[in-house]
Amino acid sequence: MYLLLGSSGYVGTKFRQLLTARKLPFRAISRTDCDIYDASSLSKCIDASAATFLINCAGYTGKPNVDACELHMTECLQANAVLPGIIDAACKESEIRWGHVSSGCIYTGSGERPNGFTESDTPNFSFRTNNCSFYSGTKALGEEILQESNRCYIWRLRVPFDANDSPRNYLSKLVRYQRLLEATNSLSHLDDYVNACLDCCINELPLGIYNVTNTGYVSTKEVVELIQPIVPAGHRFEFFESEADFMLRAAKTPRSNCVLDNTKAIDAGLKLPDVRDAILRSVHEWKKA
Amino acid sequence: MYLLLGSSGYVGTKFRQLLTARKLPFRAISRTDCDIYDASSLSKCIDASAATFLINCAGYTGKPNVDACELHMTECLQANAVLPGIIDAACKESEIRWGHVSSGCIYTGSGERPNGFTESDTPNFSFRTNNCSFYSGTKALGEEILQESNRCYIWRLRVPFDANDSPRNYLSKLVRYQRLLEATNSLSHLDDYVNACLDCCINELPLGIYNVTNTGYVSTKEVVELIQPIVPAGHRFEFFESEADFMLRAAKTPRSNCVLDNTKAIDAGLKLPDVRDAILRSVHEWKKA
Repeated sequence: MYLLLGSSGYVGTKFRQLLTARKLPFRAISRTDCDIYDASSLSKCIDASAATFLINCAGYTGKPNVDACELHMTECLQANAVLPGIIDAACKESEIRWGHVSSGCIYTGSGERPNGFTESDTPNFSFRTNNCSFYSGTKALGEEILQESNRCYIWRLRVPFDANDSPRNYLSKLVRYQRLLEATNSLSHLDDYVNACLDCCINELPLGIYNVTNTGYVSTKEVVELIQPIVPAGHRFEFFESEADFMLRAAKTPRSNCVLDNTKAIDAGLKLPDVRDAILRSVHEWKKA
Repeated sequence: MYLLLGSSGYVGTKFRQLLTARKLPFRAISRTDCDIYDASSLSKCIDASAATFLINCAGYTGKPNVDACELHMTECLQANAVLPGIIDAACKESEIRWGHVSSGCIYTGSGERPNGFTESDTPNFSFRTNNCSFYSGTKALGEEILQESNRCYIWRLRVPFDANDSPRNYLSKLVRYQRLLEATNSLSHLDDYVNACLDCCINELPLGIYNVTNTGYVSTKEVVELIQPIVPAGHRFEFFESEADFMLRAAKTPRSNCVLDNTKAIDAGLKLPDVRDAILRSVHEWKKA
């Protein structure tokens, strides 16, 4: 029995869908079921559900975007850095393993290796490097708190997208935003991401950090080309002149743009197809719907 | 009516004593009175007490010392960084002002000014500078979260001591520790600190940050000389060879040693006598007791 925390968000909803599709029994819990910020209350809830694995999709990403985290620091810190520590303590009490939806946004750039940052690279977009958004800082701090845990997966998601139009879907954002920032990123097809996370559990892969991104990386302009079939007729994409122009005109806080190396996940047998293929697959399904 | 949070600790106890001595009405609240981690629950408690000012002495310092924070990151982060944000939201809801017991341990060294770090200097012993203990990181993050607040005092305490032998009293620690680290620090006589904080409220001083330390600074060896009258006969003080030796032999995480400039507090009329006089006063009272 899987216990799902934060099941109503963009990522949590996909977990619910794919757990159902894969006939894996689960229970979604919320603040009305127990005090999720209290380890023993949460542990009791785990025990009462006879859960054998907990999946944490709860987090604070900011609405409409990450800039909002600069104004809601407390909620952001609590959800992204404190909660993972509490869940780990609860899972220790209940003697179960768990998985944490983390983020690749704790890196910037592509690092010094050929295929981007690996799981052994220290985050370079964090409070520790003092160049990050408050959001990224709290996500990195959450991972730091879990560093000594011997019972959890840290599943790094990066710029999620899928075939359903929604405010959190990267493909939707590209069409909705007035102006785009040209940048190079690894991305996560949300279905691929969630299936890979579930495969981690089912196949009992070694615990620890996984960059759960599709293979490779793309620039914003490349993605814009790939999604042409779903772009409304007559829509013209405009771009900021530079990151400085973007920061000046549109953003309160710096964004993470980064390339992640998913070799560890691939070598472990997780299915994370090439990012371009994953985008085309979403475009195809979107078009069909 | 003052509302006191964290009234059972070393600092909170002194607040209770001096509020009583100064005949200032107060109510101490704890987790059994309300959920202090929930802004609206806390706000209701403020309103029900008809409190006009809240004093937050709650914090996680680690027992027996700051090394413990490296093992209890979640509790530490929650108490030192999340709670201040929640209190600020609650006080906003209840439309009252409040004071936060912060710490000078977010600095290291004496900075580039003649009298140490002022309130306008950015902390240099924090997550942002990536050289700190987890404790210092959380205290600096707590101040960062309060940066935009327009309703709170941030009262920085530094290496508190008083006339009563106790595990948190710096003078007691000097006698109890097997071996000491020679370093230069500003210190806070706890009675002077608490009286200065109360004077801030009573005299309605401008809100913001205050270095509430006694004037000047002392080295560990100077303090050892000053406290000779209360040192048990035959006690021999031993010192680590260096900070590196201390880190290697006794500590898990780096300590803050720093000089703070209290000019802002002094100019505002707060009574923070010379640190040597303050130590001698404690020694004199200790001896008498």
